[in-house]
Amino acid sequence: MAAVSAGTVSKALNGGGQLRAETRQRVLEAARQLGFQPNTLARSLLRGRTYTVGLLTSDSFGRFSIPLMQGIEDALGAGQLAVFLCDARGDAVREQHYLRTLLSRRVDGIIVTGRRADTRAPLSQDPLPVVYAYTKSAAPEDLSVVPDDVQGGRLATEHLLAAGRRHLAHVTGPTRFEAVLERANGMRAALAAAGLEVARDHVLTGSWSEAWGREAATELLDGDRHIDGIFCGSDQIARGVADALRERGVRVPEDIALVGYDNWEVIAAATRPPLTTVDMNLEGLGQAAADHLLAMIGGMRASGIVRLPCRLVIRSSSGVSSLRDWPASGTPPA
Amino acid sequence: MAAVSAGTVSKALNGGGQLRAETRQRVLEAARQLGFQPNTLARSLLRGRTYTVGLLTSDSFGRFSIPLMQGIEDALGAGQLAVFLCDARGDAVREQHYLRTLLSRRVDGIIVTGRRADTRAPLSQDPLPVVYAYTKSAAPEDLSVVPDDVQGGRLATEHLLAAGRRHLAHVTGPTRFEAVLERANGMRAALAAAGLEVARDHVLTGSWSEAWGREAATELLDGDRHIDGIFCGSDQIARGVADALRERGVRVPEDIALVGYDNWEVIAAATRPPLTTVDMNLEGLGQAAADHLLAMIGGMRASGIVRLPCRLVIRSSSGVSSLRDWPASGTPPA
Repeated sequence: MAAVSAGTVSKALNGGGQLRAETRQRVLEAARQLGFQPNTLARSLLRGRTYTVGLLTSDSFGRFSIPLMQGIEDALGAGQLAVFLCDARGDAVREQHYLRTLLSRRVDGIIVTGRRADTRAPLSQDPLPVVYAYTKSAAPEDLSVVPDDVQGGRLATEHLLAAGRRHLAHVTGPTRFEAVLERANGMRAALAAAGLEVARDHVLTGSWSEAWGREAATELLDGDRHIDGIFCGSDQIARGVADALRERGVRVPEDIALVGYDNWEVIAAATRPPLTTVDMNLEGLGQAAADHLLAMIGGMRASGIVRLPCRLVIRSSSGVSSLRDWPASGTPPA
Repeated sequence: MAAVSAGTVSKALNGGGQLRAETRQRVLEAARQLGFQPNTLARSLLRGRTYTVGLLTSDSFGRFSIPLMQGIEDALGAGQLAVFLCDARGDAVREQHYLRTLLSRRVDGIIVTGRRADTRAPLSQDPLPVVYAYTKSAAPEDLSVVPDDVQGGRLATEHLLAAGRRHLAHVTGPTRFEAVLERANGMRAALAAAGLEVARDHVLTGSWSEAWGREAATELLDGDRHIDGIFCGSDQIARGVADALRERGVRVPEDIALVGYDNWEVIAAATRPPLTTVDMNLEGLGQAAADHLLAMIGGMRASGIVRLPCRLVIRSSSGVSSLRDWPASGTPPA
């Protein structure tokens, strides 16, 4: 249609060689009229790269996977990489199946994500670039990107201290989660820096549920402990705490200030009062993981555990709007 | 390594030609030792199919996309198809970019998903197989798979009627959503079949939020209307209704039975009492959409709107455990 040789078409479409502008234009116009699409597959075979990445979730797509995926997809899409979705659902056999599939499809790299930022077995010993996001590989030669849960716990606690609270409790999830231990350590570090500590019977561990939050709040109130702030290990727990406190006539934040963890919008924003909470910035974490993977694919190998900072999202439950009142009002109410 | 020609290796690995079992075995063993992986790309070029499918979400991955994706991925994975993830975030320019990317990658087909099952513009006029899941294409030649929201509304209402409730109200979302109209139509159909109807001031439309549920419940109670059952257009709304009723001393389900919609576990199970709710079976819907796409890729074109039935998940809020009491106890309490 353009009345030129195949070699000239190739030069025109791939931008190489020396062609007159008019000739290139004629070829491009003919390609447009014919609805020609470059064949990425053929290009991949020639260049030895597929510009595809596998996203392997070791757990089902859940609350935490969504913002992670958005971040990953954003960072890779900008680099023109396409993402293969693989949901292993915590099943080792499925994971192996997906790994074989991704290898046979010659992906340039793989991102492995988890549900909670705990340690997991490495994927396998292969030369492919792999980054672990929101999960930690047990192999020291691997690269993992996780939220800094110690810093997150510190952030929540410093906020409660800044709001004038001195008698803090911690209601959190099961101790088998590394995040539970790290967030509590962050809380202790912030208190220690202020010359304070959290009493042993002010740290209650249970399940990641509203019901546990209600139960723990009741236990704290019945125990007649002097408490003016509660840091919760999740928004679901914090919501349960908020409900139980309200139903016992305890005002949040006037009597007890409350900080959650996760910034799970549907929970945090619907809590009465809306929750101040720690946001792990999972979308940014996904972007960072993707950027690390791109660097690896480009030949920059790295290893270790990268911890990214959390940030605090301030709503009403922590009484920060009355922050200026605290220094003047002396001892906060209990 | 196997001491045979390249042609013999090809026959052995691809299962073609006439080879002695011993020769084939020697080649396979050598391939295994060398860690040989078949190159799916090269195969795709030869066969004219890539065994890849694009998953294009017209809205961000959210609550509704997760089970949909699981179903899609399950059905396609079993057929050895890999899924490319594309999140257009409701942005037409991004969607066009992704569409070009998917075409250049020669996907075998595309599944388009939405956030609520409303009608959308068709993707574009191209010969590629496309199925719309949890969203409806405006083009009659397209195939869309959506939940049957009329049947879902009927299901919820029939359940309340079976529980002996006769004075029903409906608290639901914004009327610009087709689902809002369809669920209300289902409710009216079920009531009409029982010789009943819902009073105009017993249907309250607002936002998809707990706060609206609380507000609407307060309005219903203040209006001094005789109500013994409420069907809510979402679990978030139902949770707000449940909270407001409890705080006004109205017992659920004894005084007012409650049915939600969505079966969003984190909301429905945490409501006090846990919600009986309509489940749109989104995972099954994703599987069905994927199966339709596979059939299309295989040459079986289809068009129209396929509506899949919802099911009821019974928890405590509808008082079904006391179902046997109703016929004996005469008029239900108000």
